[in-house]
Amino acid sequence: MPETMLAVVKPEPKAGAEILDVKVPTFGDTDVLVKVKVASICGTDLHIYDWDAWAQRRIHPPLIPGHEFCGTVAAVGREVTTVKEGDFVSAEMHVACGKCYQCRTGEAHICQFVKIIGVDADGAFAEYVRIPESNIWKIDPAIPADYASVLDPLGNAVHTVLAGEIAARSVAVVGCGPIGLFSIAVARAVGATQVFALEVNEHRAKLAKQMKADYVLNPTKDDVKSVVMDATNGVGVDVVLEMSGKTPGIKMGFDILRLGGRVSLLGIPSKPVELNFAEDIIFKGATVQGINGRLMYKTWYQMQALLKSGKLDLSPVITDRMAMKDFSKGMARLKTGEASKILLYPNGVK
Amino acid sequence: MPETMLAVVKPEPKAGAEILDVKVPTFGDTDVLVKVKVASICGTDLHIYDWDAWAQRRIHPPLIPGHEFCGTVAAVGREVTTVKEGDFVSAEMHVACGKCYQCRTGEAHICQFVKIIGVDADGAFAEYVRIPESNIWKIDPAIPADYASVLDPLGNAVHTVLAGEIAARSVAVVGCGPIGLFSIAVARAVGATQVFALEVNEHRAKLAKQMKADYVLNPTKDDVKSVVMDATNGVGVDVVLEMSGKTPGIKMGFDILRLGGRVSLLGIPSKPVELNFAEDIIFKGATVQGINGRLMYKTWYQMQALLKSGKLDLSPVITDRMAMKDFSKGMARLKTGEASKILLYPNGVK
Amino acid sequence: MPETMLAVVKPEPKAGAEILDVKVPTFGDTDVLVKVKVASICGTDLHIYDWDAWAQRRIHPPLIPGHEFCGTVAAVGREVTTVKEGDFVSAEMHVACGKCYQCRTGEAHICQFVKIIGVDADGAFAEYVRIPESNIWKIDPAIPADYASVLDPLGNAVHTVLAGEIAARSVAVVGCGPIGLFSIAVARAVGATQVFALEVNEHRAKLAKQMKADYVLNPTKDDVKSVVMDATNGVGVDVVLEMSGKTPGIKMGFDILRLGGRVSLLGIPSKPVELNFAEDIIFKGATVQGINGRLMYKTWYQMQALLKSGKLDLSPVITDRMAMKDFSKGMARLKTGEASKILLYPNGVK
Amino acid sequence: MPETMLAVVKPEPKAGAEILDVKVPTFGDTDVLVKVKVASICGTDLHIYDWDAWAQRRIHPPLIPGHEFCGTVAAVGREVTTVKEGDFVSAEMHVACGKCYQCRTGEAHICQFVKIIGVDADGAFAEYVRIPESNIWKIDPAIPADYASVLDPLGNAVHTVLAGEIAARSVAVVGCGPIGLFSIAVARAVGATQVFALEVNEHRAKLAKQMKADYVLNPTKDDVKSVVMDATNGVGVDVVLEMSGKTPGIKMGFDILRLGGRVSLLGIPSKPVELNFAEDIIFKGATVQGINGRLMYKTWYQMQALLKSGKLDLSPVITDRMAMKDFSKGMARLKTGEASKILLYPNGVK
Repeated sequence: MPETMLAVVKPEPKAGAEILDVKVPTFGDTDVLVKVKVASICGTDLHIYDWDAWAQRRIHPPLIPGHEFCGTVAAVGREVTTVKEGDFVSAEMHVACGKCYQCRTGEAHICQFVKIIGVDADGAFAEYVRIPESNIWKIDPAIPADYASVLDPLGNAVHTVLAGEIAARSVAVVGCGPIGLFSIAVARAVGATQVFALEVNEHRAKLAKQMKADYVLNPTKDDVKSVVMDATNGVGVDVVLEMSGKTPGIKMGFDILRLGGRVSLLGIPSKPVELNFAEDIIFKGATVQGINGRLMYKTWYQMQALLKSGKLDLSPVITDRMAMKDFSKGMARLKTGEASKILLYPNGVK
Repeated sequence: MPETMLAVVKPEPKAGAEILDVKVPTFGDTDVLVKVKVASICGTDLHIYDWDAWAQRRIHPPLIPGHEFCGTVAAVGREVTTVKEGDFVSAEMHVACGKCYQCRTGEAHICQFVKIIGVDADGAFAEYVRIPESNIWKIDPAIPADYASVLDPLGNAVHTVLAGEIAARSVAVVGCGPIGLFSIAVARAVGATQVFALEVNEHRAKLAKQMKADYVLNPTKDDVKSVVMDATNGVGVDVVLEMSGKTPGIKMGFDILRLGGRVSLLGIPSKPVELNFAEDIIFKGATVQGINGRLMYKTWYQMQALLKSGKLDLSPVITDRMAMKDFSKGMARLKTGEASKILLYPNGVK
Repeated sequence: MPETMLAVVKPEPKAGAEILDVKVPTFGDTDVLVKVKVASICGTDLHIYDWDAWAQRRIHPPLIPGHEFCGTVAAVGREVTTVKEGDFVSAEMHVACGKCYQCRTGEAHICQFVKIIGVDADGAFAEYVRIPESNIWKIDPAIPADYASVLDPLGNAVHTVLAGEIAARSVAVVGCGPIGLFSIAVARAVGATQVFALEVNEHRAKLAKQMKADYVLNPTKDDVKSVVMDATNGVGVDVVLEMSGKTPGIKMGFDILRLGGRVSLLGIPSKPVELNFAEDIIFKGATVQGINGRLMYKTWYQMQALLKSGKLDLSPVITDRMAMKDFSKGMARLKTGEASKILLYPNGVK
Repeated sequence: MPETMLAVVKPEPKAGAEILDVKVPTFGDTDVLVKVKVASICGTDLHIYDWDAWAQRRIHPPLIPGHEFCGTVAAVGREVTTVKEGDFVSAEMHVACGKCYQCRTGEAHICQFVKIIGVDADGAFAEYVRIPESNIWKIDPAIPADYASVLDPLGNAVHTVLAGEIAARSVAVVGCGPIGLFSIAVARAVGATQVFALEVNEHRAKLAKQMKADYVLNPTKDDVKSVVMDATNGVGVDVVLEMSGKTPGIKMGFDILRLGGRVSLLGIPSKPVELNFAEDIIFKGATVQGINGRLMYKTWYQMQALLKSGKLDLSPVITDRMAMKDFSKGMARLKTGEASKILLYPNGVK
């Protein structure tokens, strides 16, 4: 085990990040030290990088960001029993307290006192990362490393899609960032029979087509409601997966929803949303769900089963691969709007 | 059978109503003619009476309003088999089309083409009312007529309370109009272990106490959040039943909701609502439900079982009784904010 | 419209059936007369043909059997509004009373007073069949007629598969008659990630392979439990779909079920079943469901959506096609155990 | 802290038990040592005492039995944070592995590798008992100690009653041992509107009346089916809670169940059960659930909320109180069939 490692570090409370040589993390009796093989950039990492209002409130530098990754177990604490050196793993980076009401009733994904590795503690944009055994996920070797590096956002998609009935349902995915794109694949794999993808960015719209959405619509150009109503015999879609976090997207989602339909909200609006509760929720008899994280660990089992059975082709979503030291290039690339999922390799692109 | 009858009539598209002598309704092969024993005034009737914007769009005079009532079967059409002359009955006044997607999948309460008797067709503020057999509800004789006249709004309450887990749960009822007050009784009867009633009107607050809410709070005076958090070990309430239809009430409901809790929206806001979707729904992992009408007819069975077993004391909600011909006095009384449920008797208060 | 038609008739209470020229059915104001295009033979028809104990109790000759079919509307009653002459249709042959507790609470598929067309009234093994409008299902023209003729048993499969969680689940289909085979296709289409098919008949086992079950096992030859446990990391299957109706199949299903799993029972045992309730249900925390018919009409919408989207390849199940007049040959063929679904064409095989 | 303590011990693999002076348990960093205030005898303890076939397979003497109790925290391990010396506590005695599929998906109550304190490790029939912090339940001081000593079986009842819809439902409790009796109280508290108690033992039947079952029936004397059908308009009961573990009780439960009803099985049959799956489950569209233990820890929160709100009067179930040293007298008393719940006090009856 080396003493030091390469890491992406935000050293101070300001924009940007540096590539530094830092100490390999220590680990306790119930911890696992993982050698990172592939990590993946999330929009959250861009917030941290840009040091926006949210980041200024939440992040306490110095911090190694990064919460999407896979790797191999480099070492385990004395009390660890479920993985051993060399195992191929990823991790749930939401570390739940285990003691609050939510944790004790099967809802650890909304733990009152959650800490997120890569946000509240040093993360995976480094050669090594420390993970508590409780949060380690042993990956089936049939799953490729690139896919294994995006289990966190894929888990968001699986959690959202499977948060209600989906088989034989029509579904609108509003917003085709990486999680929206993953949701298209997941919805198709679990029997959604019509998938409408709504997206204004043409690069993302193109990816939505590659993910095999049945309809890819641009709300600024297409008459979305008319297309949806025609395709659903005037009923509207059964399910809306809101991934945009934008007020117009949310409104559009409710507008095309059928009476009695489900809206699952994952995209996070940066400001309050004004909605016609009477027409859009109450008279409609709609069910609206706030979706946070991934079920611990039901979603992980579901995701692994779907991946292992070959039901998910995620390849179009992975648009860029680069060496981890080129992290800042990744940030720039993300801002162009042309990239979707960017993978980072600590030891260079394989 | 007499040829004419007394009825409350809105003869023209303007405010007010008249007491007129009109023809007793004819009825078809599948209809039931009911002699009204007790009818009850709903807020909707006040909208119609006052001829507000909603009423101007929806109502086509001449109309006999009234959609809450009980009575006895006066006559039945040739094909009617489930009730006979003399039976004690009420009715579901939402007449569903029976042929749309919602009707054919067990969600007739949100039928795309619903017609409401008393809104879209002549209703129960009269000596006789015509009801299709499909919508007749035969009432167990153990249930008193006054209670039987409010099954429509009681059904709203039962539908809302039972729209999710409620046993052994803490519940906030936001807004203590008649349906809110009924909800307190229903929630207690089905095992809610803490009931918080939020109400700004002191008359209604007093009724909420009589309905045995554990806490009756005035959001303009009490520190609601602090009281709720203290009483729930800092967790928040499991369930919010939103009956106010007011933006501050809705916001307050979400604010005191626990992570992973349920908000059931019944109160109808008259304008769009601005809400912090990120904090109040998404990060909270909340479930929000739009509640419309009553399940046809699951809610009716539930309601009847609860009433028959004596688990519901609704008496405090019935604040006024008057002859049906004094309808306009009832309207005036309702506007004082001092009345809750006002019962009308076609043949004078018994 | 002709006055007479060809029909398969059981004229007397004894084994066998005859091909007769009978009167075309009359129809009432709310009925639809359908010209049969394709009908399909069900195991129930064999019971009726063979005049077994069940048939002797239930069937009152003369009777035209047949409850799986599709066709075109030949004529409609005066009050019919949802279909018109020439429409391509099938029908739900369970005619529910519409008035019992189950019918009024969304469970018409288990109506207390159900009558089955083709069992309790003349059915579809004829050139024409009379159907109440309430039970008519208008078929999307994208669906081929052969598939449209098996919507009844396909609906059993869809109802069974979707009676609980199925996405990303491992599933065992016990018994590969037509409904079992359909279930394999449906389970795969809605995201089951491992499908185990258990079947002792080699013809059926071959069809199960063609339906793309991941594992096709013969309980009399293979060590089913060992294979299942190896493939599920020692956990067992999440879901068992019991389609055999045989005691050994039922026992095997429970034996390979994981703790907390679901067993959906569709196959009908002809005698009582002895089961170790303690180990197989209680300690296992299992959920066991009796499945009857198809949801009216949720299952029909689901089925149509799955078929229309092209997610189901049912072709291997349809093993035989013949003229309806050769009905008795179909019965003989069914008894060989070599046929699965046999289609009958009133006007000869197209 | 004393070095030794009084305990009920089964020293050898044979019938009986002894009162011995043994060492107070040691405890680790994550353990809690509890001074027992009240313990309660379960039927399982009788199996162990009598050394029946089950006990011979499962129990490895020497063992201190006892898995129902409450007490005060005497000492805590270094890493314990949720309770402190003096806290009033009970415990979930099923210690789940935390690592199997069930544990990681919210179903720890059916953990594949569960160990039960009082069965697989020394239990609570002693002055002190060692409990892992994860399993400690801090009791609200409003709850009396006698009730706090029976949270384990009360939790079985709460888990069973709340395993499906119960509000406004008719319910049959089959078998009125302590858990059956508790179930009557719980069902009433959460809105069951008709409770039928079935019991052959007259002492238990008397207690069922005291628990306020609406009907207490003796299947060997009363025409149970006729009474139930009359009281439910010929529909049958919505829910059967099977607490007898006897074949006739199970058959009777299914016989009185309505179409589409729920049967929750908690009573453990000692041998296989023969049932008419066709009529009793499949055509009935029944849902059958195996119930094991209590949800960890949702049931505990529910139970505490119900007790704290005063909705449960359990006093009739507690028929006997004695000093723990009189344990063998308790066993004898239990065998008479005249006792229900027997409480043991290490320091004599208060």
